[in-house]
Amino acid sequence: MRGTVIHAPGDVRFEERAEPKILQPTDAIIRLSATCVCGSDLWTYRGINEVKQPIPMGHEYCGIVEEVGSAVTSVKRGQFVIGSFFASDNTCPHCQAGYQSSCQHREPVVGAQAPRVRVPLADGTLVATPEVPPDALIPSLLAVSDVFGTGWFAADAANVKPGTTVVVVGDGAVGLLAVLSAKQMGAERIIAMSRHASRQKLAREFGATDIVTERGAEGIAHIKELTRGLGAHSVLECVGTQESMQQAIGATRPGGFVSYVGVPHDVKLDGQSLFYTHVHLHGGPAPVRRFLPDLIELVWSRKADPGKVFDLTLPLAQVAEGYRAMDERRAIKALLRP
Amino acid sequence: MRGTVIHAPGDVRFEERAEPKILQPTDAIIRLSATCVCGSDLWTYRGINEVKQPIPMGHEYCGIVEEVGSAVTSVKRGQFVIGSFFASDNTCPHCQAGYQSSCQHREPVVGAQAPRVRVPLADGTLVATPEVPPDALIPSLLAVSDVFGTGWFAADAANVKPGTTVVVVGDGAVGLLAVLSAKQMGAERIIAMSRHASRQKLAREFGATDIVTERGAEGIAHIKELTRGLGAHSVLECVGTQESMQQAIGATRPGGFVSYVGVPHDVKLDGQSLFYTHVHLHGGPAPVRRFLPDLIELVWSRKADPGKVFDLTLPLAQVAEGYRAMDERRAIKALLRP
Repeated sequence: MRGTVIHAPGDVRFEERAEPKILQPTDAIIRLSATCVCGSDLWTYRGINEVKQPIPMGHEYCGIVEEVGSAVTSVKRGQFVIGSFFASDNTCPHCQAGYQSSCQHREPVVGAQAPRVRVPLADGTLVATPEVPPDALIPSLLAVSDVFGTGWFAADAANVKPGTTVVVVGDGAVGLLAVLSAKQMGAERIIAMSRHASRQKLAREFGATDIVTERGAEGIAHIKELTRGLGAHSVLECVGTQESMQQAIGATRPGGFVSYVGVPHDVKLDGQSLFYTHVHLHGGPAPVRRFLPDLIELVWSRKADPGKVFDLTLPLAQVAEGYRAMDERRAIKALLRP
Repeated sequence: MRGTVIHAPGDVRFEERAEPKILQPTDAIIRLSATCVCGSDLWTYRGINEVKQPIPMGHEYCGIVEEVGSAVTSVKRGQFVIGSFFASDNTCPHCQAGYQSSCQHREPVVGAQAPRVRVPLADGTLVATPEVPPDALIPSLLAVSDVFGTGWFAADAANVKPGTTVVVVGDGAVGLLAVLSAKQMGAERIIAMSRHASRQKLAREFGATDIVTERGAEGIAHIKELTRGLGAHSVLECVGTQESMQQAIGATRPGGFVSYVGVPHDVKLDGQSLFYTHVHLHGGPAPVRRFLPDLIELVWSRKADPGKVFDLTLPLAQVAEGYRAMDERRAIKALLRP
C-alpha cells in the first residue's frame, strides 16, 4: 500500500510502505474512511521537531474494522470505529482516572495518513458508532479522533462551567473546537483571540461572542477591559508557544483556570510570576478516549458539527498539498480521503 | 514603642519605632498577644531577598483590638482578633471567589513583630474569636494567622479528599501543618518528606503515616514504590525551590494535583516536561482569610493544635535569637511574647 512518509522538513511523500499487520493479539487493523493533517504534524514539517529518519505520518483516524487479533472482544470486523492518537488499555489506574493518554501501557498510533492502520490495544482504544455512518458525518466523526477531543479537553481542564467567561488563545482547528466545546458546556461569554477573518467567522459560528485581535500585553489589556478588569474564569491555551502561554496566564483572573493542550515548544514558566497570578494550570496530551462516547453521541445526534474545521478536502495521494496549505495557513485543516 | 527591624542580612534589631496609628477610617490597631518569625522572613535574613533599607518585620499576629477607625463596624475595642498577612476588603470579586490574598484593594500588614500593629481594611481582614481566649490557646490561634492557613491552602489547592494518598514536600512549619490539614481533610495516607528526627516526630503526631528521607530522583522513586508505581493523588510543595518543585511534580500521578505555597525562588518550569506529567498545578500566596472562620473553630473546639509547631518561645525583645534559631534549624518556629 502507499502511505505518507516525511523524509525531511517540507518533504512529504506518498509512497510504498509495508501493509499494516496484526502484531499482537490485542491489535486491530482499520480501513480508514478518512484521515487528516494535524497541527502537530507541522512541527515536524517545519523542522522544529527533528527528522532523523523517514517517519510514517498520521494519528487521526476513523473507519471500518478489517481484522482483529485473537484477544480482541469489544470491536469486530465491519464496525465503524474511532480511536485516539494514544492507544490505551482503558483499565489501568490512570485510564480509570480518565487519563488514558498516560495509560501505563500506552502506545502511539502511527502512520494513519494511509488507507489502513494498525491500532494496538483495540479493546481499550476503539469506540464503535451505533452503525456505519452516512458519508456526511465522516468529517465530524474524524474530528472526534483528535482535534475535537483535544479542544474538549482544553475546556474540561480549564473548568468551563455554565455562565462563565472563557478566552481561547489560538485560532487553529483545536482552538476553534475549544470554542465549540466551551459553548457546549454552557459558557456565557467566549472570547476568541484571532487575527484571521475566515477563522473569526468560524469561531463565531461555533459560539464565540467576542473576538480579540491583539496579542501579548495588548491582548491581555483588551481581555481585562472586556471583563471589568478581572480577567477570564477560564483560558484555553491552544498553541504551545511562550507568547501564547503568557498571554493565557495573563488573561486569567486570580483563582481562574488555564489549560494547555498543544505540546509546548521552548516554554519556560517563571515560578514566582506564576505564583502571584493565583491561576490553576492543567493540561497535557488530551485523554481523548475519556470523551469519545460523549463526543460521538454529540455528532451522531447532530448537536455538534466539529467537521466544519475541515476547509480543504483532498484525495489521500495529494497529502503533500494538505501539509503545504496548512503550513501557509491557506487551510485550517485538511481532510484526506483514501 | 520598640519593634523588630532588619538592617542587613543577619542583622535583626529590636529598636525604637513610631507607634502605629489609625491612618485610614478602615484601620484598626491591635495590641498583640503573640507574634512569630515566618519561614519567609528567613529569605530576607539570609539576604536572598535584598535589604535596601531598614525593614520593619513581622506579618503574623493575633491580639486585642485597641482602637478602630471611624468606618470600622464589624470588630470593636476589646475583642480578640486574628488576621492574615494581606489585608483584604473581603467584598471585591476576587475576595468573593475566595482569593482574598489577590484582593483588588489588598495591602500587606507589616511590622507585626512588635507590641502593636496597624491592620488596614479591618472589617474585611479581622475575624474575632467567640471570646477572649485562655492563654493556652494563643499559640494555636497565632498559627491560624499564617502558617496553619497556608498549610491548609496547600491541602485545599492540591484537592486533598478523604481516602487519598498525599505527599508533603518540606518539613518546615508550613509543611508540618500541611500534614495536619491533610489529616483533617481525611487523607488516608500522608507521606512526609523529612530528614530531621524532631520534625518527623511532629509530622507523625499531626498524622503522617510514612516518612521519606530521600530527595530528588531517589525521593521520587521511593514515593512511586510506596504507591504501586502510580505516584500520589496530591503533592503539597511547601519549600519553594527548583528541587522541591521538581520533586513534587515527579511524585504526582497523571491527573493528580500539585500545590505550591512558598514563594518560589529561582524556579523555572519547563513547559514540555510539565505537559507530559498531566498534573494539575495551583498555588500562590495563601488566601488565609477564606479559611479563618473554620480554622479558628477547629482550634477553639480543640480539634486541632497547630500551635505545636512553636518549639521555641521567647520574649519579643529577644527576636534576634528567634531568627538565629530558625536559620540554624535549631527551632521549627519561634513564638514571640510582647
